[in-house]
Amino acid sequence: MADIFTCPPLTRESVKTAHEIIKPYVHLTPVVTCSTLDALSNGNKLLFKCENTQKIGAFKARGAFHALSHLLSNVGHEALCASGGVITHSSGNHAQALALAAKTFNVPAHIVMPSISAPSKIAGTEQLGARIAFSGSNSEEREALVEEIRAKTGATLVPPYDHPDIILGQGTLALEFEEQVKALSVSGGLDAVIAPIGGGGMMGGVCTALEGTGIRCFGAEPAFQGANDCEKGLREGKRVESVNSLTIADGARTPVGEIPWKILTDKKKFAGVYSVSEDEIKMAMRLLMERAKVFVEPTAALGLAVVLFNQEFRELIKDKGWNIGVVLSGGNTTVEALAKLFKDDSDNM
Amino acid sequence: MADIFTCPPLTRESVKTAHEIIKPYVHLTPVVTCSTLDALSNGNKLLFKCENTQKIGAFKARGAFHALSHLLSNVGHEALCASGGVITHSSGNHAQALALAAKTFNVPAHIVMPSISAPSKIAGTEQLGARIAFSGSNSEEREALVEEIRAKTGATLVPPYDHPDIILGQGTLALEFEEQVKALSVSGGLDAVIAPIGGGGMMGGVCTALEGTGIRCFGAEPAFQGANDCEKGLREGKRVESVNSLTIADGARTPVGEIPWKILTDKKKFAGVYSVSEDEIKMAMRLLMERAKVFVEPTAALGLAVVLFNQEFRELIKDKGWNIGVVLSGGNTTVEALAKLFKDDSDNM
Repeated sequence: MADIFTCPPLTRESVKTAHEIIKPYVHLTPVVTCSTLDALSNGNKLLFKCENTQKIGAFKARGAFHALSHLLSNVGHEALCASGGVITHSSGNHAQALALAAKTFNVPAHIVMPSISAPSKIAGTEQLGARIAFSGSNSEEREALVEEIRAKTGATLVPPYDHPDIILGQGTLALEFEEQVKALSVSGGLDAVIAPIGGGGMMGGVCTALEGTGIRCFGAEPAFQGANDCEKGLREGKRVESVNSLTIADGARTPVGEIPWKILTDKKKFAGVYSVSEDEIKMAMRLLMERAKVFVEPTAALGLAVVLFNQEFRELIKDKGWNIGVVLSGGNTTVEALAKLFKDDSDNM
Repeated sequence: MADIFTCPPLTRESVKTAHEIIKPYVHLTPVVTCSTLDALSNGNKLLFKCENTQKIGAFKARGAFHALSHLLSNVGHEALCASGGVITHSSGNHAQALALAAKTFNVPAHIVMPSISAPSKIAGTEQLGARIAFSGSNSEEREALVEEIRAKTGATLVPPYDHPDIILGQGTLALEFEEQVKALSVSGGLDAVIAPIGGGGMMGGVCTALEGTGIRCFGAEPAFQGANDCEKGLREGKRVESVNSLTIADGARTPVGEIPWKILTDKKKFAGVYSVSEDEIKMAMRLLMERAKVFVEPTAALGLAVVLFNQEFRELIKDKGWNIGVVLSGGNTTVEALAKLFKDDSDNM
């Protein structure tokens, strides 16, 4: 990966530059609204940024295209291919994103995926021509296999979130969101944004993109089995270094990375994080599908779940009349996975 | 209901007038594309009109607002309310649509629904303040109960599809679709539209709206238990007058009405109808959700199912390079209903 010391600084200007670089490769995803969900938002208006319709079905395409573009401009295409291409580990969306970017730029890609990944995500990555190796599900096991393959092939690591190029790439969604809401002539534009936190790459990017705009940046985490590592870390003043949670919000099963952590501990950039239960995530997911008619994966429902069910957050936003931007991070799930998730509810009817 | 002899003629001009009347009350629903689905479309491009995001989650809002507007301008608000308001029977979406229009115009509404209707549709209709009466599931039972309530209250029938005002209202979606595709700078605009056929109100409206434009209008039906009554009727040269099918595409369980039948037997207006199996509907529904990320009810998947799986239709469109507009008619289903629909697939994994 590009040495982090040669990366652009983590500023709004750098996010704008990243946006120009990746625009030809990613979708300008739509912003949608839903009056039923507005009515539940405690006196505010909700605007949803549909990164579930981004290329490969998640925002991760942004960071992958940006990181690989930067790497290619630093190293050169021939040299990168000769040295084995790129490698990463990911529970799914980053894997597909890097595979797509690598295919687009004609660079070999090696992907280490936990063998318990959703079959749709494995199939999606394979179809993009990447070479897949399966590991155990915790981060130590994944990283060990990455090291093994790197040693053998010489491939360059493109990490899923803990890198400035990734963070700047993900942040581009916030620039679009800001402009799109202004263009919707919703008076005054965005007042706040809430987005899921897994490794913190996207949240860090959003905070970086919106610094100085006055738009408040909030994060949303699952509470299940300690996946709310950012919330805990901020409370205890120390980054939580490992997470072992099987929350249904599988994009949020990782601890916040070191670089995102620096951003999220900066109170000028990040306004705070709130957590929700598995049932609250399911309920938000149901409402997004049944009411807003958007097909989302559980992780994407975290922001709405906080808006609807976290009492502390609801108190904070009560009757504020804010335009709250909610990032729908991805839509990579299957009807079978939904059937399993909502089967008990169905059996009880 | 407005006497059909005082209704505007079934022409493209009348659809344009209807559009001006209902614009303040309905959404301009988005048109989306999906490269994965394009790749499966036998050498054509697909454009999806998202009426699943229409008010009440289906195109039916268009017809209901148009019919009630026309009725109010003929009869007057006071007289209509004094004579008991409006009444209809519907398996769901028309019920909610009329309930919403009636609530908007502050007119009493009576809705006869089959007691086996989806709980979400019953709840949706109740929340809109309509008075609900439950009947058996076939059309004779429903109509008998409507007559009984009409006799008692004096309410005016707003039928779900077999009326010019309804047909003209539904047709407005085609005018928007035509303009939206032109604006997308897809070379040449729409070449064809395919839409589900239940009672034929929407299909008849689409054919009426697009007459003389050169855009071919195709219909899609479920084959299960004879729900392909339009296809059979056209083959035998005689309208099929009753259908008793429990196809998962519940919006297509009704026979084509008399007025839509006149439109659909006119070869200058209607290019033909094709049918698909229950499994093909499910597969199309899965692809719309997992790939295009749109949340749809089974009926809405009929058009894509024909494009992907009906061999006669695939032969017809092969390598034509057409821009094919596919109407996603509605999105009123629940995660529980999905869980039931895809449970067997899930158990087999």
